[in-house]
Amino acid sequence: MRDVNKDNITDVFMSYFGDDTDPRLIEIMQSLASHLHNFARDVNLTHAEWLKGIQFLEASGQISDETRHEFVLLSDILGLSSLVDMLHSDSRGTSSSVLGPFHIAGSPPLPFGGDMKREFEGQVLLACGRVTDTDGKPITGAELDIWQTAPNGLYSSQDPAQDTYSFHGLQTTNADGRYAFTTVRPVSYPVPTDGPVGELFNATGRHAWRPSHLHYIVKAAGFRPLVTEIFPDDDPYLDEDTVFGVRSDLVMKYTERPAAEFPAGYAISADVDEPFLLADFDLKLVRL
Amino acid sequence: MRDVNKDNITDVFMSYFGDDTDPRLIEIMQSLASHLHNFARDVNLTHAEWLKGIQFLEASGQISDETRHEFVLLSDILGLSSLVDMLHSDSRGTSSSVLGPFHIAGSPPLPFGGDMKREFEGQVLLACGRVTDTDGKPITGAELDIWQTAPNGLYSSQDPAQDTYSFHGLQTTNADGRYAFTTVRPVSYPVPTDGPVGELFNATGRHAWRPSHLHYIVKAAGFRPLVTEIFPDDDPYLDEDTVFGVRSDLVMKYTERPAAEFPAGYAISADVDEPFLLADFDLKLVRL
Repeated sequence: MRDVNKDNITDVFMSYFGDDTDPRLIEIMQSLASHLHNFARDVNLTHAEWLKGIQFLEASGQISDETRHEFVLLSDILGLSSLVDMLHSDSRGTSSSVLGPFHIAGSPPLPFGGDMKREFEGQVLLACGRVTDTDGKPITGAELDIWQTAPNGLYSSQDPAQDTYSFHGLQTTNADGRYAFTTVRPVSYPVPTDGPVGELFNATGRHAWRPSHLHYIVKAAGFRPLVTEIFPDDDPYLDEDTVFGVRSDLVMKYTERPAAEFPAGYAISADVDEPFLLADFDLKLVRL
Repeated sequence: MRDVNKDNITDVFMSYFGDDTDPRLIEIMQSLASHLHNFARDVNLTHAEWLKGIQFLEASGQISDETRHEFVLLSDILGLSSLVDMLHSDSRGTSSSVLGPFHIAGSPPLPFGGDMKREFEGQVLLACGRVTDTDGKPITGAELDIWQTAPNGLYSSQDPAQDTYSFHGLQTTNADGRYAFTTVRPVSYPVPTDGPVGELFNATGRHAWRPSHLHYIVKAAGFRPLVTEIFPDDDPYLDEDTVFGVRSDLVMKYTERPAAEFPAGYAISADVDEPFLLADFDLKLVRL
């Protein structure tokens, strides 16, 4: 097109598409190109600013590898990951939240009442609740994939000092649809700041912190899988999660209870002789 | 923000910015986040589509290095590079066009009437013209940085068989504001398709070709530098340049002339004994 100009370039771009292009791809590329071009027009993007953007993308590519995913992090801190979550969250069930880059497959079984903290020190946290359908009816045999940070703020995949499956467990709900396990409370932590995303934080005066949370993926036959996280209501970063993952229905409370109230028959029941924290949180799944 | 939702996330994103953030950065990030979020909302982007996008960016990062710039190529084939050019082109002068990824600094001097084709075979092309201001007044001592493909469709930086500065030259306009050099005609060529951009071409039924062109960067004291390209009017890809670089005022004509009309005093004057091609193209600079 020799008459391409700043007003018609989006149409010219679309005119290049072949007739048998997948209609969904056409829809996505049309919207992407329109927004990209309108962004450049709206801010009157200069060559120097364009080059900064290209260099940002190249640096993000350079720092990425099999375990470091700077483009996922960028999507997270721009709010895109959370927006995609919210677009497909079903308000009849528990809200979904970001998966994050630290999930690993193959977590070991964690029996009902089992312990996930192993040798780590700290006040015992008993996390429990029910998995139900949207009518509150318990779901037996639902699978919970659970993971969290160690007390040093690192996930096992970030921390050579931890075992592969440290603070990871796979539990199946019992006949009452209940889950229960012991751990120590997860901690707030900053997302990685040694790459381009860290530079963006610096340039915009923004912190890198996430409020502490427990990650759950909940699956049950006949229901939509739920990827979510739950957050204690006393975390200082609850209202400023750097990846926008907090939803009001995902906020729970740690209640301190005397040792005498710790239930019998759990893996560490015999060892609990100090007050423990209780987090009772129900998870509601939506039928397929 | 525990009440972040799919409608307010852009505002929440902006609320994280520090008070002393550069106002231009705020303007750019506000527009970028709005367009990014509206894109996701407009197409109701799914998790699977989001993941495909992340994988596309990661693969683009992986294939990039000091000489391969997949993100520049992506910007080029999405029309962003050309749009940025057009936003800042001054209609009083010759249109600018994309720099492309193949320019290298330090080209050797090419005297007026010098030869750039060296040992390469092919019909002689005499490229010449004047560099003027917007009133048509010649500019003496303007510098032209010239580069083009070899007959195999490759730039020297892509082709180990060529010298570093093969088909590159630096010429200064004479007392009449004129430039002139001999070469062979550049050829149409496809942009690299062995990376993610190639996959996008395949998925959208789009070809990778650019019409043949001569690249010029023109600089003169007191004038805006001009980065441009000129295209012959008989190129089959003139109306479908895959990087949207063609502007109507950058289209020129190759005219065949008898050997007897070849000017005297040029580097190869003594050797021209067959009809040659003439491309006479004036370049108009805008005063700073």
